[in-house]
Parts: sequence; structure tokens; C-alpha cells
Amino acid sequence: MANYNKVTQNMLRELKEIIGERSVWTSPEKMEPYSHDAVTGEKYVKYPEAVVLPGNAEQVARIVKLANRNLVPIVPRGAGTGYACAAVAHEGGLILSTEKMDRILEFDEQNMVLVVEPGVRTSEVQKAAQEKGYLYAGEPSSGDSSFIGGNVATNAGGLKAVKYGTTRQQVLGVQLVTPEGELVTLGGKLKKDATGYGMTQLIVGSEGTLGIITKVYLRLMPQPQQVMDLLAIFPSSAAAIGMVAKIMQTGITPVCVEFMDNRGIRCVEDFLGEKLPHSDNGHYLIVSVEGDHETVLEEQCMAIDELCAENGSLAVLVADPAKIWKARKSFGEANRARSLIFSAEDIVVPMSRIADVVEKLSELGQKYNMTIHCVAHAADGNIHADIMKEELPLEVWNRQLPLIQNEIYQFVYSVGGKLSGEHGIGYKRLELMEKFANPVELKMMRAIKKALDPNNIMNPGKIFRLE
Amino acid sequence: MANYNKVTQNMLRELKEIIGERSVWTSPEKMEPYSHDAVTGEKYVKYPEAVVLPGNAEQVARIVKLANRNLVPIVPRGAGTGYACAAVAHEGGLILSTEKMDRILEFDEQNMVLVVEPGVRTSEVQKAAQEKGYLYAGEPSSGDSSFIGGNVATNAGGLKAVKYGTTRQQVLGVQLVTPEGELVTLGGKLKKDATGYGMTQLIVGSEGTLGIITKVYLRLMPQPQQVMDLLAIFPSSAAAIGMVAKIMQTGITPVCVEFMDNRGIRCVEDFLGEKLPHSDNGHYLIVSVEGDHETVLEEQCMAIDELCAENGSLAVLVADPAKIWKARKSFGEANRARSLIFSAEDIVVPMSRIADVVEKLSELGQKYNMTIHCVAHAADGNIHADIMKEELPLEVWNRQLPLIQNEIYQFVYSVGGKLSGEHGIGYKRLELMEKFANPVELKMMRAIKKALDPNNIMNPGKIFRLE
Repeated sequence: MANYNKVTQNMLRELKEIIGERSVWTSPEKMEPYSHDAVTGEKYVKYPEAVVLPGNAEQVARIVKLANRNLVPIVPRGAGTGYACAAVAHEGGLILSTEKMDRILEFDEQNMVLVVEPGVRTSEVQKAAQEKGYLYAGEPSSGDSSFIGGNVATNAGGLKAVKYGTTRQQVLGVQLVTPEGELVTLGGKLKKDATGYGMTQLIVGSEGTLGIITKVYLRLMPQPQQVMDLLAIFPSSAAAIGMVAKIMQTGITPVCVEFMDNRGIRCVEDFLGEKLPHSDNGHYLIVSVEGDHETVLEEQCMAIDELCAENGSLAVLVADPAKIWKARKSFGEANRARSLIFSAEDIVVPMSRIADVVEKLSELGQKYNMTIHCVAHAADGNIHADIMKEELPLEVWNRQLPLIQNEIYQFVYSVGGKLSGEHGIGYKRLELMEKFANPVELKMMRAIKKALDPNNIMNPGKIFRLE
Repeated sequence: MANYNKVTQNMLRELKEIIGERSVWTSPEKMEPYSHDAVTGEKYVKYPEAVVLPGNAEQVARIVKLANRNLVPIVPRGAGTGYACAAVAHEGGLILSTEKMDRILEFDEQNMVLVVEPGVRTSEVQKAAQEKGYLYAGEPSSGDSSFIGGNVATNAGGLKAVKYGTTRQQVLGVQLVTPEGELVTLGGKLKKDATGYGMTQLIVGSEGTLGIITKVYLRLMPQPQQVMDLLAIFPSSAAAIGMVAKIMQTGITPVCVEFMDNRGIRCVEDFLGEKLPHSDNGHYLIVSVEGDHETVLEEQCMAIDELCAENGSLAVLVADPAKIWKARKSFGEANRARSLIFSAEDIVVPMSRIADVVEKLSELGQKYNMTIHCVAHAADGNIHADIMKEELPLEVWNRQLPLIQNEIYQFVYSVGGKLSGEHGIGYKRLELMEKFANPVELKMMRAIKKALDPNNIMNPGKIFRLE
């Protein structure tokens, strides 16, 4: 660990001069919510030395300059809905929360660009777009609570990535405070840009290690007029997953293709206290199509329906969107209710290998006698496998989890996959990252980090270690 | 300039050991085509000390290691169709041509990924995709001759970026030889990836300054079944350009929206010896829509037609695609025939500011008594303004060009624009880059370059200077 300094009384005084007395917190009660993110487990909890809540980019820049000068770590943080402990101050220092920077700054209809501060909730961005007939296509499952700045920092994926890509594809530019406290705008309202390196795209997904995002330029598109959801139910996970490539080969590009395995369905059913269709033995594929022409969508749904029937579906239902999305989005919460401690894996593989991964997970679950619930953003090759602790004694869990993860990721990397499709590495997956990532790629990432953050004060100890 | 070494006899011998006698060229006749790209003008010509033509990635890695150890610059080069002199050895050393690495390695239909070597022509990539019913959506105007590696290195734009984005959006991964000669695969057949920094996207558009691309993973999509082209003709450039935002607001997303001004149309007409419609006073907007349903496309074309008529179009014709695209794609060649020396600007601005830029260009053309022909990828905000030397004496041209460019880019940056939408910076725009780019952003780019290429041997003197 680098030789960081502690936050001194003097530094607190300076912080208060910059943002005011009431925006600098040091009491444990107020800092508790900032001591963790959505990951459960005592070993991930760490209190910062102080939480600061600036109101604008200039204040952020002054705070970062102060931290950099004093060699105090600084951790940018959105809503704390992350699944990788990226926004927790594991090396001490300051948490900089963007929650007061929550304004929609500009709705530029002509250029179809929305300019927002980082602390705007994702759902507020979606709503603002929708109200004027546009679509903001980023849709992480946590959208009701997550901040857009966090979406950008983690390159959040979600439910519409099949058709529209992840957050990366929605970001045209960012305003950034660099680790040395300089303010810079990268990109902007430009649909194209070949003016030097793609810096905006380097910042997207860098998990707050290369600077603090203080403004985001988001791409909007026309709001599709119609959406239809199908729920196709299969007697085995292999049959459900096998459909995905077949659907994608039809020429139809659905807006989402979600898989839920039977264990996950039952767990959600228990959690919601609601009967779900074919929950005794069914595995789900939820397919949504969006467009402007009802007849076209109906045609697409019929084609998908027929294809599923030919491939052994138990049923294909025109889904009640409220009910089915509630079930899908409750997956994480339901698992947590079943087992407060669980490990949410975020495997990503080439789409064609999902079935192999699901099979491998089932095999390993048996081998280690651990329950694993799966959902997948199936057309993206992104599998959320929640490994449940349940009744396992903590020491067994702590011993077994790295063993099963090791086997999982050996397999995942052997089929061209990676550690994370959309949750990021943060603190939680750092050991796995250092073990499984290509060493040359890691060296390149470390070199970039050192180049842009010479004092290693910006969210240190995340993604990889520097020493 | 750094203290580079010259290519010695000893080094040539080693190069021949790696790739064979016949793949190392030093004769001026053979090297002439490698002494320039598509940019005309003596001052941009520079012969390398040798041209090397490796046949695979391992050979590339060995050559780069050798160059790095000997402090000899190395310049990766595709088909040499660039407009920024990025693939010319202005600091001496080696040109590494990828022309022998021209294999399509894998057509993975299930994952809709095409894996190719860098020396495959863009049109070959398009053709390979099309033959199996897929679309490769990159479509630079130079596609018949450009290599896919060059497209990736420059983040080539082109005619379909409105709907599908630039080359950046088509690239899922690259295999790269780093400036220190290490071979690494970044990304792969993954639709999503949150496993550390977005390294693939940093390499895209880095103009060969951060390594040599030896393999590319390209995203395919379903081939749309139908395409319709409209040619809308307006009595003024302002009227034509004013239509662009209106069309985009309808909710229709065309696959391309191209603008040609009257001067450009007449120049092309002369060049082709073919009468073009309304060439006496017309300004063109070419709008294409793609999709699977003829009735939907017809509906869209009718809506666009009506909208143009309401906004003063002289005519809206269902375009003869062969004729109209030939005219559009002949723009550069026609200008070159008119004036061997001309400066092809690649301005990019927020879409809403194109009309202002075109007006400014017209005003500056009059002020400096220089002819400027314009086409624009209008919905992308990307304007190609060809400033013609014609009969101007060379010393007047050389004196005036920087003056008019200075005024152009002062205006462009004042409206949120940048130097290059798709051609890149290379050697040609380096002075303008250092003058107009944000100094903090430039500092970040330089820091990354130094971090990844400590000896500054990989295509030095491009985009920015290091000293």
C-alpha cells in the first residue's frame, strides 16, 4: 500500500472552506451508508475518513487538488448500487459523493443530446428523455436508484444492451476532474470524433480510477412507439439458452433477451409470494421487441413464437410486462432474502458458450455442494450467477468460494470469456483480475493509471494493484 | 526530434532473417508508393529507410522488438488511403505494411463475429459478410481500397455512421503488437466487457501510435433486406442543411444523410462528364433508409419527401443509386482533377451548427479568394471542406492556407467542434492539434503515449509532439 496521509483537522478545515461545514461529514452514523455498496459481507465494509458532498465541478477540482497535494486517497461515488465495491474507501481517505450534483443541465433536442450532472438518477434521465419523445437507451436493472455518473464510470450494461449497446455506446462526452485536479471536457455533442485518442471511451468503465466525472453528454434516439414482450418457457436451461442464437439468426434484433433458470424463478416466486408460470420445471427466456410498427412487431413475435415451439418450448406467452419484469428485476433481492451472503458473479463469454457455462456451473455447484442461481443477459453472453452461502458455515464459505471461483474462471477464460460483463472489477474482483487477466493487458492498464494519476490517489486499490 | 538511430545493414540483415529477403525493400522505386498517402503536396512526402512486409503477428512482434531495441521508428501502414499522412515515415525508420496479412481468419456465425487480419480490404470484409446474409456496417468512402486495419487505426467513419456509428462501434477486439513488441489480445468475441479499462477502444483511432493491429474482431449484424435512396434538391445550402435536424426529429433513423454543395456538384459533373440533376443551382441531400419491410421504407420515404417539399425543395427524386453514389464518391477525385493541390478539411461540429460552418466557409472563401467545395456527412455534423489551390501561386497558397485554417478552426472550436470527424490528425493536422486541442486533454494523451511507448518508436511525430 502506498504511503498515504490521513485526513487531518487542517484538511477538514480546508474542505469546509471549499464546500461548507454541512457538506463535510465525519460522524460514523452519517458515513455508514458510504462504508459499503450493494455487496454484502463484513470483509467488504470500510469506513472512509470523511465524506464530502460538493455541489459543482469547480468544487470537485479544488477538493481533488487538495487530496492530491496531501497524498490522501479520494473515492468518487454515485448511488452506491455497485456490485464490485468500487465506490468504497478501502485505502482510507475521502469519499466524494456526487449526490448534490443532480441537475439535468441541458436538453438539446436538435442534436439529440442530454447534458447531465453525474448525480442524476438513471431513471430520471430515462424519464426526461421519454417526456419529449426520446429514448435514453441505458437501462441497468438498478436504474431506479443508480446515478448516471456511476453508470458511466462502470460502463453499466443492463436490459437493452442487445440492441443499443452498454452505457459506453450512449456517452458522447464527459467533463472530468483529473487526478491532479484539472478540469477538462472530453468529447461533447459530437456524433463522430477522430481528433486524437478516444479519451471519453477510456474514462467510461474506468471505475473512478482515472478521474471524477462531473458532467455527461448522453446520446438520445427516437423513442420506439411500441414494445412487445414474450415469455418463452422451456423444460431445460440448455433448451432455453439454445434458442438465443437461433433467434439472433432470424434477422430480428430484439431489444432484450433474458434468461432465468428454474432455481432463480422459484427463489423469486418465494420472495414475491406470487405464482409464476411453469415454475415447477420451467426455464424462462424473456424476449422483447421494439419498433414503430405494430404489424412488424406482431410478425416478429409470431416468428419467435414458432421458432420456440419448433424447439420444444413448454409455452410461449405474451407476457404481462409488469409482472414478468418485476420477477426478473427481483432476482438479486430474492437471492439476498434467501441468503444474506452470496457472491454475484458477472461472467461474460461469447454468446455461443453460455450453455457450456451454465452446465459447468451446475456441475461445480454439485461438486462443492453450493446452490447457484442464474440469470443471463443471454444475447450478450453475460451470466449473473449468484453463488449462495445459505446455511454453509462462514469458514467453509470463505474457504470454498475462492476454489469454486477459480474453477469457474478457468473455464470462462478457456472459452474466450472474462471476469465481468457489466459489474466491473472494483475491489471485489481484484484478486481474480490479477490472476486471470492477460499480463500484457494488465501492464498496459497499470501504465495508463500511473501516467494519469502519478500519486495514485484516485480510487486506489481498485481493478488492480500498482505495486 | 528524438535521437533515433538509422536502419543499419546489420538491422536489415536481421529483418531479412525474420521475414525473408523478398519482404524487405530498400529501393526507392519500390518504396515510392509508401512515401505518401492520399494527401497531395511535396511537403508531405517522405521516404522510409526500408519497407517491411511481415506475414503474421509473430513476425510483426519480432520486427517491433528489433526496432525498439535499436531505437528505430516504425510506422504501421495499411493501404495508404489516409487523409492525414499518418502512415508516412516522417521521422525516418521503417514502414511496416500489413498488405501480406490479408486473410479472413474466421466467420463465426453463431456469435456474429468476423475475425480478420489487418490487410483485408474493407470491401472484402463487407462482401464476406453480405454473402452469408450479414452486414458489416463500416463503410468509409475509400472502402474499395482501404484496409480494415487502417479503418480501425483511424476510427474510419463513412456513409453509414448515422445509423451504425463509426468503425469504433464495429470493433469488439483487436490483437495488438505493443510498442515493446509484446503480443496481446484486447477484447474478443464479447458483446460486453467491464473487465478493466476499455483498451480496445483506446487502440481504435490511435493512428498506429500505440501499437500495430494484427487481428480484428468485427461485429456483424443482420443484413437489412431493403434500401431506398432519395435525392432531395434545394435552392440553397442553408435550406438543404436545415432539413437534416428536421428529418432526424421525425423518429426515422436514416442509414445516411449526405450533403453536397453546388460547387462540389458542378465539379463532379465536369469530372464525370455526366449531367447531374439541377446542377445549375441545386444543393443535394442524399437520404437513405434501410430495413426489412418495403412498406415501412416507402412510408418513411414519403414522410421525408413531404417534409422536404414543405421546406422548399426544388425536387425530391427516387435516386438512381449507382449514379448518385458514384457522384458522391467522386467528390475527392473530382477536386483533385480540378486542383492537384487542395486541403481536405474534416471538420466536425454538433449537427445543429453545420449550417453556420458552411456559411462561415463561404465567407472565408470570399475573404481569401479561395474556392471551397463542401460535402458533409450531415447528420453526423462532419463536413469535408476541400480548399482548392487551383491557380494560386504556391507561395500565396502556402501563406494563405494556415491563415484560413486558423479562422476556420477558431470558429469550429467556438461552436463545440473539433479538427477531425473521421480522417484523423496524423502528421498533417499536428500543428492545428497542438494549437486547438484542450491542453489538459493533450497532456493526458501525451502521458498515455509515453506510458505505452517509452522509447517513442511507434509512429512518432503523429497526432502530437512529445517534446
